[in-house]
Amino acid sequence: MKNIVSKRPDFLTFKSEVRKGNLTLLAQAITLAESSLPDDIALANQLIESLLPFTGKSIRIGITGVPGVGKSTFIETFGKHLTSLSKKIAVLAVDPSSTKTKGSILGDKTRMEELSKDAFAFIRPTATRAALGGVADRTREAILLCEAAGFEIIIIETVGVGQSETTVRNLVDFFLLLMLAGAGDELQGIKKGIMEMADGIAITKADGDNTKKATQAKADFEYALHLFSESDSGWKPKVITSSALEKKGIAETWSSIEQYAAFVKTNGYFEKNRTQQNLVWFHEHMRQLLQQKLNQDVELNNKIKTFEKEITNKKILPSNAAQQIIQDFLKE
Amino acid sequence: MKNIVSKRPDFLTFKSEVRKGNLTLLAQAITLAESSLPDDIALANQLIESLLPFTGKSIRIGITGVPGVGKSTFIETFGKHLTSLSKKIAVLAVDPSSTKTKGSILGDKTRMEELSKDAFAFIRPTATRAALGGVADRTREAILLCEAAGFEIIIIETVGVGQSETTVRNLVDFFLLLMLAGAGDELQGIKKGIMEMADGIAITKADGDNTKKATQAKADFEYALHLFSESDSGWKPKVITSSALEKKGIAETWSSIEQYAAFVKTNGYFEKNRTQQNLVWFHEHMRQLLQQKLNQDVELNNKIKTFEKEITNKKILPSNAAQQIIQDFLKE
Repeated sequence: MKNIVSKRPDFLTFKSEVRKGNLTLLAQAITLAESSLPDDIALANQLIESLLPFTGKSIRIGITGVPGVGKSTFIETFGKHLTSLSKKIAVLAVDPSSTKTKGSILGDKTRMEELSKDAFAFIRPTATRAALGGVADRTREAILLCEAAGFEIIIIETVGVGQSETTVRNLVDFFLLLMLAGAGDELQGIKKGIMEMADGIAITKADGDNTKKATQAKADFEYALHLFSESDSGWKPKVITSSALEKKGIAETWSSIEQYAAFVKTNGYFEKNRTQQNLVWFHEHMRQLLQQKLNQDVELNNKIKTFEKEITNKKILPSNAAQQIIQDFLKE
Repeated sequence: MKNIVSKRPDFLTFKSEVRKGNLTLLAQAITLAESSLPDDIALANQLIESLLPFTGKSIRIGITGVPGVGKSTFIETFGKHLTSLSKKIAVLAVDPSSTKTKGSILGDKTRMEELSKDAFAFIRPTATRAALGGVADRTREAILLCEAAGFEIIIIETVGVGQSETTVRNLVDFFLLLMLAGAGDELQGIKKGIMEMADGIAITKADGDNTKKATQAKADFEYALHLFSESDSGWKPKVITSSALEKKGIAETWSSIEQYAAFVKTNGYFEKNRTQQNLVWFHEHMRQLLQQKLNQDVELNNKIKTFEKEITNKKILPSNAAQQIIQDFLKE
């Protein structure tokens, strides 16, 4: 066994072992996809492409919420509920500000102690490949690998404070927003627009003294959701009060997601949305690659910085500056 | 006079006449900026860059709302109020779906009959330069030209149903959302997220039988706004009931915009935001130029279309497809 871990397996070994659900090889394949070495990326791409026919069968759930909302606890309880239904689940944590190296998933294992010991669960933070400047691609590839390994529910966890939500929204089928029932301004700290992306809201810690506040918050959120126009899917988001402590609202949350999946599979949105997400991936990746090429050109980057200063000082028209950069870049 | 209109003036004539507020030459300069001919664009860019020191002194106001909300009537009444205060105002209409040619501003002149005859007002739709695929650049340049011509208030009008709002939000200092007081779902037809971009909301047609509904809608919107987190400017948007018919809420709307301007000039957001908008323009324009170059390559475009089909049929990994396109594009 030790040899397999330290020496890189070949393409066919990867392919068959990932398909069998070998978690060590799955983790290694994700690491490959996250690598910045061209050889690693080429192997990862070849592997994932060959596994494409075995992907897409899961439900992909994005879960977000501000720090302190109880995300880990919710996911642990929610995940245990799913594994108790004999569902194989993978939890991928997306943290754009994270400096974690690929190996140190200990933090997450500690955060979700019970779930990490569960034979039906696979927990893994996704590292960001800095050169490409985006969390999305690596996570997309991790999702596909997990699906090929037989995971039926993929949870993408993200911190609800930055720009990562829009990205994650475009990776998943269902976007769940965790909210705290607080006094006063309920949306404090939630970035504008996040609530409008939600397919469901779970109010966490709705137990003990908090129960009454949570019920009030539920009514408030329901009213606010009602103000938004209908989403593309045609689905009306539900608000659920939950408690990881009292195991309340957990089964209800899952049942709401199942209802959503049935609804969008029937009206055709499910497939349409997935195809759309793949096309966005394609075009986004082209943009990222061009950006990457631009960034690798040190001289051009210095010129961009100089132009930025001149633009700030109103010395040059931004479109003129852009034209000069692109002419240089394409060596015209 | 006829000669000036039919023969293209030179750079220096353009520069001095625009500075003097010559509306014929201003309109011609905007047309130049909207042209797709490289010579025209070069002259427009040279002109606008030379005029940069005379730009930036206006307040730029974006006004949006769904069709039927009474945008033209509101802008006409609002505009007349401003000119009655001896303010020089320019109205630029952005309509991404418009097929108007550069000359046919008759439509807009008819829409705002009184304002179009006002010596203090300049009304002009901005055509889109299709090749660049965006309304933003041309409008940015039109704003700068109008400012150089001495206009103190620039109104950018846009239809509140598409994607143009985010674009327009990034061109202006203040974003005003016009809303109708209706029965039931007040935000019907308003695209998600637009309300969160607003620095102010004016409820239109708040007169006669509508007055009571408008007052109720005001309370509803105020509640909804309260749910959103604080905007980057630190400003709390106000909701005003207005009637163009009864000239109600018009002066109040202007006074709210003046308060906003004083507020953000004091806290530094005004300048910070404008610089940020210029840097966005720079980077957006680079992306657009690259996209334009890509689009001009017929062979590459056919390849992109083929890949899109293969992606839809799950035959190829989107990131692999992207890599092949970019390699071809950069001839590596």
